[in-house]
Amino acid sequence: MKDPIEFHFDFISPFGYFASLRIEGIAARHGRTVDWRPMLLGISVIKVMGLRPVMETPLKSDYLARDVFRYARKHGVTFERPMHGRVDSSVTAGRALCWVKRHHPDLMADMGARLYDAFWRRGCALATPQEVLDRAELPLGVDPARFLEGMTSGEASDLLRASVDASIAAGVFGSPTVIVDGEPFWGADRLEEVEAWLQTGGW
Amino acid sequence: MKDPIEFHFDFISPFGYFASLRIEGIAARHGRTVDWRPMLLGISVIKVMGLRPVMETPLKSDYLARDVFRYARKHGVTFERPMHGRVDSSVTAGRALCWVKRHHPDLMADMGARLYDAFWRRGCALATPQEVLDRAELPLGVDPARFLEGMTSGEASDLLRASVDASIAAGVFGSPTVIVDGEPFWGADRLEEVEAWLQTGGW
Repeated sequence: MKDPIEFHFDFISPFGYFASLRIEGIAARHGRTVDWRPMLLGISVIKVMGLRPVMETPLKSDYLARDVFRYARKHGVTFERPMHGRVDSSVTAGRALCWVKRHHPDLMADMGARLYDAFWRRGCALATPQEVLDRAELPLGVDPARFLEGMTSGEASDLLRASVDASIAAGVFGSPTVIVDGEPFWGADRLEEVEAWLQTGGW
Repeated sequence: MKDPIEFHFDFISPFGYFASLRIEGIAARHGRTVDWRPMLLGISVIKVMGLRPVMETPLKSDYLARDVFRYARKHGVTFERPMHGRVDSSVTAGRALCWVKRHHPDLMADMGARLYDAFWRRGCALATPQEVLDRAELPLGVDPARFLEGMTSGEASDLLRASVDASIAAGVFGSPTVIVDGEPFWGADRLEEVEAWLQTGGW
């Protein structure tokens, strides 16, 4: 069994959302699974790289806002959320996903995709634990109270912190970043290249 | 006759070099010409955007160094220059190209490609006017002394400054950026998208 491909993303990132719609299919076509790895752009971009948030960066913010809609039109993706999310608004969702990944790993991919869908396509708020719970559509067998307690626990906080640290240690700075057998690809616009790499084994 | 496509680039940029190898072919296949527009990342990135030079940015510098070689292998491009050029080392070449563009516009594309080739593929220095002259391979009919005088003139300085200002006014922040009928595409990895846009008229 080949290693899973690593999908590093921040729920705040629209290009991460776009990648979330395709990453499982890409992996499945090449006999891989996906390891969903929440990270925080507020840590990597601002604290480690010393940059400002991209939507507060002159020129680039205008380009990216345009590019997001261009990508969406090309790929037939619709979304409701405007392009000015606060960078800390993905912490709760990230903790929730980390907790699920630890305690119900078989729910990881669906939960990741569902939270992304709620945040970007449907424009739902995910800032509070209750909002995350409301959008998580837990299956029978997972106790909502335990999920709520879990995502607000010190354990979930530690898990997300470890996930962010591991992303940075792997050289990840942007969302999405897909790592295939140690080879990193940054950007939703590189998913075709990810697929070519999986197909050929690299170049 | 359709408008030229705008090719905004900094000679310091390896991805700009990669684009310089393909941009004329892409344009020609769609009945377009190319307007070569030197810009300076030292102005757009550092002064306007308030960022640090990318090769001094943690995480991203490592990724880009890797991505440059990956692109080069994929496209069969070789180059001699290491990835740590000083951001001001393209000013002289930019001024020279602006002067040529004004006084010998028919030489613009060849001169742009030749200076890029000298700088990146052959690893030549282009910091001084003499170095630029030595690599320019001027055709008969262009006086080397006049070219040398031209690229060091106030006129050339003003022309480059105007070119940089026009790039920024057009929203350009990175190299390469290709603008097709007002639609900007940032990155050598978007040249396929540029070609699709030229082919289809956009989406």
